[in-house]
Amino acid sequence: MARGVFITLEGADGCGKSTQAELLEKALVARGHEVVRLREPGGTPISEKIRALLLDPANDEMVAECELLLYEASRAQLTRQVIEPALDRGAVVLCDRYYDSTYAYQAGGRGLDDALVRRANQLGSCGCAPDLTLVLDLDASVGYARATSGGADRMEAEGLAFQERVRAAYLRLAAEEPSRVRVVDALGEKDEVTARLLEEIGDRL
Amino acid sequence: MARGVFITLEGADGCGKSTQAELLEKALVARGHEVVRLREPGGTPISEKIRALLLDPANDEMVAECELLLYEASRAQLTRQVIEPALDRGAVVLCDRYYDSTYAYQAGGRGLDDALVRRANQLGSCGCAPDLTLVLDLDASVGYARATSGGADRMEAEGLAFQERVRAAYLRLAAEEPSRVRVVDALGEKDEVTARLLEEIGDRL
Repeated sequence: MARGVFITLEGADGCGKSTQAELLEKALVARGHEVVRLREPGGTPISEKIRALLLDPANDEMVAECELLLYEASRAQLTRQVIEPALDRGAVVLCDRYYDSTYAYQAGGRGLDDALVRRANQLGSCGCAPDLTLVLDLDASVGYARATSGGADRMEAEGLAFQERVRAAYLRLAAEEPSRVRVVDALGEKDEVTARLLEEIGDRL
Repeated sequence: MARGVFITLEGADGCGKSTQAELLEKALVARGHEVVRLREPGGTPISEKIRALLLDPANDEMVAECELLLYEASRAQLTRQVIEPALDRGAVVLCDRYYDSTYAYQAGGRGLDDALVRRANQLGSCGCAPDLTLVLDLDASVGYARATSGGADRMEAEGLAFQERVRAAYLRLAAEEPSRVRVVDALGEKDEVTARLLEEIGDRL
């Protein structure tokens, strides 16, 4: 049995990742693939408990290093318990955020040391790298307006300048690893955006 | 104001660390020091929530990498929120377990990759190393019998061979860093053991 394909969806808040993950899943299932759709942080009972700690506004004393390591702990559990077994049986794993989010938000958004975040990402991913990463790219002010229109969680409350640094970090990653990290225009009708993503996936499946 | 002194107490389960931490605190306070006594994992509201995840037997699917990163997340919060401010104001910080526990239990006990655990320890400690580490050393079978006499938590349920690997890892650390890591015989009356610890602390305060 051939190893499956690990695809991650990335982008700043309000870029439409979650909607596109659903639409992509449907399109790939319709083509006959087994698709395992996941979201980070979360995806296992233990990872969901860690997610709850991360997103609870009551934990507002959390320091940046603790936050970083909690994301990595949640990721390690998801990777070992779900992603690796799914890839081993040949499935397509479609993950809404993975370690590039940590890079974009912690190194880009929060300004944590670049090398430190990369080392943490190596630990948390247990060495399991995506085959393809699709970055849904959008002007930061458009995404920010979308993300905050229904109230804001702790991360989204960081402000527009933060989202702009997140976007810039994604674009840096795409420049560094152009074959893995593909930037896709997130403006337009949902189905148009899905079509762009499917075009990037192309013959990688 | 001179920086304080960071002392950690280490040892396998049942070595008497918690009792000795209390007795040491009393002795040092009697000598006029401000002592901040802490235990790991825990010591801040966020770290205690992480501790609860780590010690809950319901989380028995937790993979080794997730466990490691949760310990480091808890440590980062404690270090930034409590240890560093206490040292900055000149206090003695007395911590029941710190990163040498992670090395002894995860690399020694569980057999995780040595270099990986050391990298994780650098991240979780935010670069804050103990000035003095006192390892309460005991024949593993004696410690194990003590630790399991009142029921066993998830970690203590690992068995005697595990505790023997933990002890061996502590002795390795002491051989590597003989000036920081001091091995103290944990057998004998409580007050005798405290006297041995105070002798090791000597003029470091």
